[in-house]
Amino acid sequence: MPYVRNAWYVAAWSCDLEVAKPFAISILGEPVVLWRSETGQLNALEDRCVHRLAPLSLGRCEGEALRCLYHGLLFARDGKVLEIPGQNLIPPNAKVRAYPAVDKHDWIWVWMGEAALADERLIPPAVGVSEPDWILGHGQLDYAAEARLICDNLLDFSHLTYVHAASFGAGPEFADHLPMITPLERGVRVARWLSNPVGSPRNPHGAPMEAFQSYDFLIPGVLLMWSGNYPAGTAAKLGSVAPEMMDAVSGVNFTSQAVTPLAEGKSRYYFSWGPHVRDGDAQKRDIMMGMAGQAFAEDKKMIEAQQQVIATSPGARVMPTVHDKGITLYNRLVEKLAKSEFELLESAA
Amino acid sequence: MPYVRNAWYVAAWSCDLEVAKPFAISILGEPVVLWRSETGQLNALEDRCVHRLAPLSLGRCEGEALRCLYHGLLFARDGKVLEIPGQNLIPPNAKVRAYPAVDKHDWIWVWMGEAALADERLIPPAVGVSEPDWILGHGQLDYAAEARLICDNLLDFSHLTYVHAASFGAGPEFADHLPMITPLERGVRVARWLSNPVGSPRNPHGAPMEAFQSYDFLIPGVLLMWSGNYPAGTAAKLGSVAPEMMDAVSGVNFTSQAVTPLAEGKSRYYFSWGPHVRDGDAQKRDIMMGMAGQAFAEDKKMIEAQQQVIATSPGARVMPTVHDKGITLYNRLVEKLAKSEFELLESAA
Amino acid sequence: MPYVRNAWYVAAWSCDLEVAKPFAISILGEPVVLWRSETGQLNALEDRCVHRLAPLSLGRCEGEALRCLYHGLLFARDGKVLEIPGQNLIPPNAKVRAYPAVDKHDWIWVWMGEAALADERLIPPAVGVSEPDWILGHGQLDYAAEARLICDNLLDFSHLTYVHAASFGAGPEFADHLPMITPLERGVRVARWLSNPVGSPRNPHGAPMEAFQSYDFLIPGVLLMWSGNYPAGTAAKLGSVAPEMMDAVSGVNFTSQAVTPLAEGKSRYYFSWGPHVRDGDAQKRDIMMGMAGQAFAEDKKMIEAQQQVIATSPGARVMPTVHDKGITLYNRLVEKLAKSEFELLESAA
Repeated sequence: MPYVRNAWYVAAWSCDLEVAKPFAISILGEPVVLWRSETGQLNALEDRCVHRLAPLSLGRCEGEALRCLYHGLLFARDGKVLEIPGQNLIPPNAKVRAYPAVDKHDWIWVWMGEAALADERLIPPAVGVSEPDWILGHGQLDYAAEARLICDNLLDFSHLTYVHAASFGAGPEFADHLPMITPLERGVRVARWLSNPVGSPRNPHGAPMEAFQSYDFLIPGVLLMWSGNYPAGTAAKLGSVAPEMMDAVSGVNFTSQAVTPLAEGKSRYYFSWGPHVRDGDAQKRDIMMGMAGQAFAEDKKMIEAQQQVIATSPGARVMPTVHDKGITLYNRLVEKLAKSEFELLESAA
Repeated sequence: MPYVRNAWYVAAWSCDLEVAKPFAISILGEPVVLWRSETGQLNALEDRCVHRLAPLSLGRCEGEALRCLYHGLLFARDGKVLEIPGQNLIPPNAKVRAYPAVDKHDWIWVWMGEAALADERLIPPAVGVSEPDWILGHGQLDYAAEARLICDNLLDFSHLTYVHAASFGAGPEFADHLPMITPLERGVRVARWLSNPVGSPRNPHGAPMEAFQSYDFLIPGVLLMWSGNYPAGTAAKLGSVAPEMMDAVSGVNFTSQAVTPLAEGKSRYYFSWGPHVRDGDAQKRDIMMGMAGQAFAEDKKMIEAQQQVIATSPGARVMPTVHDKGITLYNRLVEKLAKSEFELLESAA
Repeated sequence: MPYVRNAWYVAAWSCDLEVAKPFAISILGEPVVLWRSETGQLNALEDRCVHRLAPLSLGRCEGEALRCLYHGLLFARDGKVLEIPGQNLIPPNAKVRAYPAVDKHDWIWVWMGEAALADERLIPPAVGVSEPDWILGHGQLDYAAEARLICDNLLDFSHLTYVHAASFGAGPEFADHLPMITPLERGVRVARWLSNPVGSPRNPHGAPMEAFQSYDFLIPGVLLMWSGNYPAGTAAKLGSVAPEMMDAVSGVNFTSQAVTPLAEGKSRYYFSWGPHVRDGDAQKRDIMMGMAGQAFAEDKKMIEAQQQVIATSPGARVMPTVHDKGITLYNRLVEKLAKSEFELLESAA
């Protein structure tokens, strides 16, 4: 399955990008070097010197520029070579690719497609870990698995009953009910009422409660979810209409998650989670992050094992179930967008 | 070289298959999950969920069935899907392959070919480790080598003089003499008289002795060997006729060994060895297993090195010697059987 | 890029080849076993038994011959099989390839091409570590990189300014000046005057000095370099003529280095370095080797990272700079020699 290129991929946590320290990542199999100059400018270049293909990420930041520390070529932030030691003439084609990059919501986002089409409005509205309304923990995991498999996992929460019985404590009734699935322009919305809220044993309430949880799963692999607890009967009263988040009487929390394809069979998974300031504190956040840590290790074990089976099963095909509606909608969107990108490239060529 | 599929492959020691605990193995590159239900029923399925290809071996036994712990599909022992959470209709093609599996001679045997042809009479007559007539130790080794190379090794014992001089103590005279080779319907018999018995320095006898050892090497890679010591002159008296095992005056012992191809370049080697109750005890068994442990490590070192050379020598061909008669007969049988299986599949298609 | 086969490759340090102990190495992807017989004879054979392709390097030296310790075939030093246990007739084609091998300058050199063309005069005139005129340390490093990339590195010292600023202490002026490049029959000569000698902070002189350094880089990847310090003004006086080595007033030193392609993406790098007896002692040698150890680790880090980038950049091409003149000359020579070798083989076939 293809990936969309005209999209913003999470490449790092903002806090992990130190000033004047090159940061290497591979996205969609392309080596990218990120750096933040001393004036605070964020830059992203192809991580491959034009000269002898050494990685620029082993280089040195000099003002706004980046010097390759193999033979000293100096690159401007637009990718053009500014200096070649011992040589006066700089060939006009001496440049590497520059990627649009934005620091937003405490993530570094890199646009992997046509630079002219990079539109910051397409950056998914994640909640940054430094947002004052929320008390968020964060972490990341590297997977020996295709990013697509992690996206599939996040688009079908029925696995909570089976993969996460021990961590999130979901019971069989969770997988027995189907969520509401709504197509979005750049993704899919998945929402559900839980009469027996996930995690409720750990969040006891005096009065009967029901929880609502809703997430948008957005191109190229970003999950943004909030949950909250409502008085019993709210679901029946509202019908299929979603409640207002801050009408919840307790338990409002938010998680932002992003899946980045590093290379074939390799991915990085970023996540933050925690309560709204109204409904929790650092201790609650730490309990939630402890659960998440256990749960995401459960996912990783299953998905990496699934990847191994797929790798040794060239002809095998999936058999979607009724729970795959979100996956199918999302993957069709990916295929449609990837196809139109490809056709655009073809017609331009 | 091909492998025979219509054959019983050793997939585990019986004692390693705990009740209600799925056991994963790859045989001939196919992922297989084995489990023993609470009623004692032995089951073997394709280890790949029909839904999203997760391994069923990460699943949970429920009565006679096995539940995938990714999204909860439940599989009957014949491979059919019994339940899909949240979905009433089970598609008729929702099933994985079931493999005939038998627990016999303290090994779990799996039939990798056409299920209709599975015939328990084709299970090689190994001596189980729990057989009361024998005092057997057992072990196993994983190889980074093709199973075929281990079979070749076992079919030509002339390597004892060179690979196992330090462990089994075979001298040059061992490699200088050719064994008697007899074709069998499903393998090859290799028998020899040893006037200077292997291991004799460790098994001194008052009177001059000669030893007889005979093994059948059977499809798909099972070696069954007994040895025993006879009064000097027995060989000459019997000519080429094999002696009766229990006519031996001492030293009767038995080893069952099996080579299972896990995947390309990967194999598992199972072995048991020990004396007949008449001729030894646990201490003798432990001495023999100590020798075997040293010897099989010697084999592994040589065969894995051989595999490395072969892997980097695409065009290189073997040059059989006079000692390769058993190998040649056996490999021709494998090729003949594999070819006829292939033709049967072709004509059915 | 191809490699030249009709050339002497360094296969080991002489001192690492113990008497009657087989030594394994892969050169240009071919497994080679070296051994020194008890009479001192040096031998090199294809490390792959004719019988079942086991490595002869797991074998045993017997007089001038080498016995395979899998099934006991005995090989003469010309590669012919002398004995097959249990078999009287030796097939005439029972032989492995023998490689010309020479012990010279404290290195073992193996000729990988047409044996008839092996000419000892083509062995590069390295300075052996046991030469009494020099006080040399030595070492080696294995690279997860193509040998070609290490050769490229050694043919363009402008990287000293960037890769080795911390170890060899080269400043920007080093990369700003071009060396004198002279084509040789089997390589390239690279020479330069340094008004601010590399390492000078560690080698202070009372009077102003300038250093001359000159190296020959020779097929198939051997660097032979000497340096020395001269009174300021010598460069101007001599023009482009090289000074006599022993006219140097101090600091005369020599390094021999060799790059051997083990297999695709794998190389071994051998090096010795130290002062002339007139200009230094064991302590000076140790200081130099300490610097070299740090510097060669810097190279390895950069070159292995470069290899990784190249491995994931199928279409990427290099863009030579003015400093690549030596690389270009040398690589053209390699291509020319490899092409003529290939044509010779074609016409012979």
